[in-house]
Amino acid sequence: MANKETRQLSSFQRKWHHILFEGNSTQGRIFDIILLLAILTSVAVVMMESVVPLQRRYEHLFHLLEWIFTILFTIEYIFRIWCSYQPKKYIFSFYGLVDLLCILPSYVEAMYGNTHFLLTIRVLRLMRIFRVFKLIPFLDESKYLVTAIQRSRRKIFVFLFFILLFTMVLGTIMYVIESGKNSDFTSIPISVYWAIVTLTTVGYGDIAPITPLGQAFSALIMIMGYAIIAVPTGIVTVEMNKIHRAETATSKSCLGCSATGLDADSQYCKFCGTKL
Amino acid sequence: MANKETRQLSSFQRKWHHILFEGNSTQGRIFDIILLLAILTSVAVVMMESVVPLQRRYEHLFHLLEWIFTILFTIEYIFRIWCSYQPKKYIFSFYGLVDLLCILPSYVEAMYGNTHFLLTIRVLRLMRIFRVFKLIPFLDESKYLVTAIQRSRRKIFVFLFFILLFTMVLGTIMYVIESGKNSDFTSIPISVYWAIVTLTTVGYGDIAPITPLGQAFSALIMIMGYAIIAVPTGIVTVEMNKIHRAETATSKSCLGCSATGLDADSQYCKFCGTKL
Amino acid sequence: MANKETRQLSSFQRKWHHILFEGNSTQGRIFDIILLLAILTSVAVVMMESVVPLQRRYEHLFHLLEWIFTILFTIEYIFRIWCSYQPKKYIFSFYGLVDLLCILPSYVEAMYGNTHFLLTIRVLRLMRIFRVFKLIPFLDESKYLVTAIQRSRRKIFVFLFFILLFTMVLGTIMYVIESGKNSDFTSIPISVYWAIVTLTTVGYGDIAPITPLGQAFSALIMIMGYAIIAVPTGIVTVEMNKIHRAETATSKSCLGCSATGLDADSQYCKFCGTKL
Amino acid sequence: MANKETRQLSSFQRKWHHILFEGNSTQGRIFDIILLLAILTSVAVVMMESVVPLQRRYEHLFHLLEWIFTILFTIEYIFRIWCSYQPKKYIFSFYGLVDLLCILPSYVEAMYGNTHFLLTIRVLRLMRIFRVFKLIPFLDESKYLVTAIQRSRRKIFVFLFFILLFTMVLGTIMYVIESGKNSDFTSIPISVYWAIVTLTTVGYGDIAPITPLGQAFSALIMIMGYAIIAVPTGIVTVEMNKIHRAETATSKSCLGCSATGLDADSQYCKFCGTKL
Repeated sequence: MANKETRQLSSFQRKWHHILFEGNSTQGRIFDIILLLAILTSVAVVMMESVVPLQRRYEHLFHLLEWIFTILFTIEYIFRIWCSYQPKKYIFSFYGLVDLLCILPSYVEAMYGNTHFLLTIRVLRLMRIFRVFKLIPFLDESKYLVTAIQRSRRKIFVFLFFILLFTMVLGTIMYVIESGKNSDFTSIPISVYWAIVTLTTVGYGDIAPITPLGQAFSALIMIMGYAIIAVPTGIVTVEMNKIHRAETATSKSCLGCSATGLDADSQYCKFCGTKL
Repeated sequence: MANKETRQLSSFQRKWHHILFEGNSTQGRIFDIILLLAILTSVAVVMMESVVPLQRRYEHLFHLLEWIFTILFTIEYIFRIWCSYQPKKYIFSFYGLVDLLCILPSYVEAMYGNTHFLLTIRVLRLMRIFRVFKLIPFLDESKYLVTAIQRSRRKIFVFLFFILLFTMVLGTIMYVIESGKNSDFTSIPISVYWAIVTLTTVGYGDIAPITPLGQAFSALIMIMGYAIIAVPTGIVTVEMNKIHRAETATSKSCLGCSATGLDADSQYCKFCGTKL
Repeated sequence: MANKETRQLSSFQRKWHHILFEGNSTQGRIFDIILLLAILTSVAVVMMESVVPLQRRYEHLFHLLEWIFTILFTIEYIFRIWCSYQPKKYIFSFYGLVDLLCILPSYVEAMYGNTHFLLTIRVLRLMRIFRVFKLIPFLDESKYLVTAIQRSRRKIFVFLFFILLFTMVLGTIMYVIESGKNSDFTSIPISVYWAIVTLTTVGYGDIAPITPLGQAFSALIMIMGYAIIAVPTGIVTVEMNKIHRAETATSKSCLGCSATGLDADSQYCKFCGTKL
Repeated sequence: MANKETRQLSSFQRKWHHILFEGNSTQGRIFDIILLLAILTSVAVVMMESVVPLQRRYEHLFHLLEWIFTILFTIEYIFRIWCSYQPKKYIFSFYGLVDLLCILPSYVEAMYGNTHFLLTIRVLRLMRIFRVFKLIPFLDESKYLVTAIQRSRRKIFVFLFFILLFTMVLGTIMYVIESGKNSDFTSIPISVYWAIVTLTTVGYGDIAPITPLGQAFSALIMIMGYAIIAVPTGIVTVEMNKIHRAETATSKSCLGCSATGLDADSQYCKFCGTKL
């Protein structure tokens, strides 16, 4: 693959590569903070543009700001390609595509004007928010959280699968109980939606049972939801505890067999029997 | 009991028994995945049939799909009986009855047409969802969750019993406070339903206090609910921690110094250096 | 005090004392189960009596059942006094007063008929539910829960006191933001009630912010509530963990100084130095 | 700085300094309890004054009470300055400013009468509630809670930052799905507000999805919210566990065999029997 070929960069390009892609130097950190502020401001502008009264009043200001950000992000995008050791790899990476999709909508809008897909195109500019996630790995705390979530991932997915099947059963029972008497429970999917709203303790109240049996049954669901919420919490807590214990684990090491991670109260290496 | 008699099966039957009932071979896993997809699709069809606009538009398609699934599941059901070592045991087992109830409704509907019980009969087809639970034990994660829940079961039941009694007391007090001034609190059972909705933090808002005293009292209930939710979470977390510790538990003991509780991967006693 | 005097009971009274007050014999357990069913049925009757349509239809049945329960509980009450070693102590104990208050309302109603306080008097019969709590200590699981809650009690009270002060601050800020523009936020107490409803994630929706600033501020409260709910859960989990660890603690004991509760991996008593 | 200069106080001033600022003597505790009651009563008065019917009825009583509290707190404020070793330091400290702001509104109101900012000025009197926080450090339990929260602080902030970005993404997707069909989702900020209400399981119901796709998507958000709530709980529980373990931590080590991590109450090394 051409992606594997590593380009030769000039020292100027190498310096910028360091700033743009690594971010653990002082200059890199300053660039990241400026970028973060630019992203958040541009996201705020797109959001405010969707508010009709604000849009009417500040239309020209929003338009101007939008173009300033588009041009800035375009320059940054071109710079990133130019400074990359493997430009193709960057362009087709997840963040490379996000970077491109963040600047395209403005150009498309400028070219085709008031098209039918205008709203969707405008909203695409909000993909800029994904660029913030790129900066998150530099936070130490996020590593801890990401590790805990990653390790709990499979258990939580199985749990959520259980919950989905469970809410289908609950929704169907509720449909049989309420349909005919209550105009809210019009179909099974709506009843399943209601069961999810209730079991997760969200409780909008847009759909609510009115028959005594339905109310008794939904009281049962709520009480179950109150107990079930304990399961993901338990999973994550245990995983976090594991990580914490692994971090504080006493790591006596053996001179005989170079084993590491031995218990703090070991007197002999448990692998080769050497006295520590 | 006749159930105890074990039939002799031909090698062809034995092979299918393996695929249908055990599912840890490659063929068994493929069959399970196909079955899972068929079950989920048939469940989706039954759900969509309950949505009036979709039902009107795709009536014939739904009818066709329903018969395809019914015939497929009937073939599977007959096959399961034919391949079973103890057919009677299978037929009268929980999953055997579920398998039968999943195909019966379509035949009943075909025979009796538009009867009064049509809705209930149709909904019975959704029992197919229980067939998915049969496939769950093959997931490793589910064992962990099921063990944690089983061990917490008694404590959580006692806790929920407490909560039920507690909500009865709260509901009654609220009935005395609000009835007469608020048309929502018509009876004690309704007030208990409201107390459950509030304590579990669901909060539909279909019934809400309007008197100052009632609002103060419900604020108190909410704050208590906020603290009480900690109890099932604590129970489940402790149980999961126990399981985790048991998994990593040290189960070797030393013959030299009688030390117990050595790590499972120890080759030498960490206290006296004796080879285990 | 006269309460300290212990009566001499006949062997018949002693036998009944055993059944009525101790409940760890077979007869005592049977009596407790019958009593539990009687209490729950009588509570269900009082609850259903408050539902207007049921009350109209089954008035005579409810009246009859009420008198049967009243007479049964009266006999039980007299029996308890008669079998008690210290009758006065029982009469003025919490459960003695509850037992009395459970039977009084029916007699008061019979004597004074349709008085103004009828509703309150009738509702007092629901105090029977407190009698169920008397039976709970016989459940092993409840001990565990009660211990965990008792030990967390002080921490949770301090936490709830914090939360109350915090919701007062939040409610006041919201009152300044929304009052004048939103007819829901009529006063500071109502705003504090709203802050509690929001922070505890109940969210009735009877009072909801409508100004953009108010919505932004309430979004902030919700996110804080999402994080704050972790605190009581953490408290209870840690306490339950402590209890669990204390239960499974390895209790090697020393022959030299009779010390107990030594670590499982101890080779010498940590108090007197005797080799174990 | 002038703040560093420590004044000479008379023995009378020193005695009052002890009572006002330290609060661990009997007199100090009595003063704190009286002050706490005065603060809570004055807060209750300000709150009740905002309720229109109460305000009309008890206007004169509220006015009188307000002046009594203002004069009392003014005397206390002057006393605190007079008894302080470094008056300037106290005046410009956080609690010094709070103490001043608690008494100023009444004087401002008296001078300028019914001004436009009357409401805001009156509400400022509720800052008195912050004075209660000053008394909290004297509770042992609060130290434990404050430590646990402080240690979890950074992790929880990173988590809440994730959640905010996440709800922006969810709100934007929902805006694309529902806008045009649902009059509730008028702009992206409103949709983000809805996403926060849903993810945190508050669920007011003032804004609710009506399209099938929107309902399916919000069901997904709810189920995610159900799992995500586990993260802050896990963080706090692990931190509390750490504190608990540190409190009971073993801090003795043996000179004979260099064993570390022995129980704090050990008198002899449990591994080699050496007297510690």
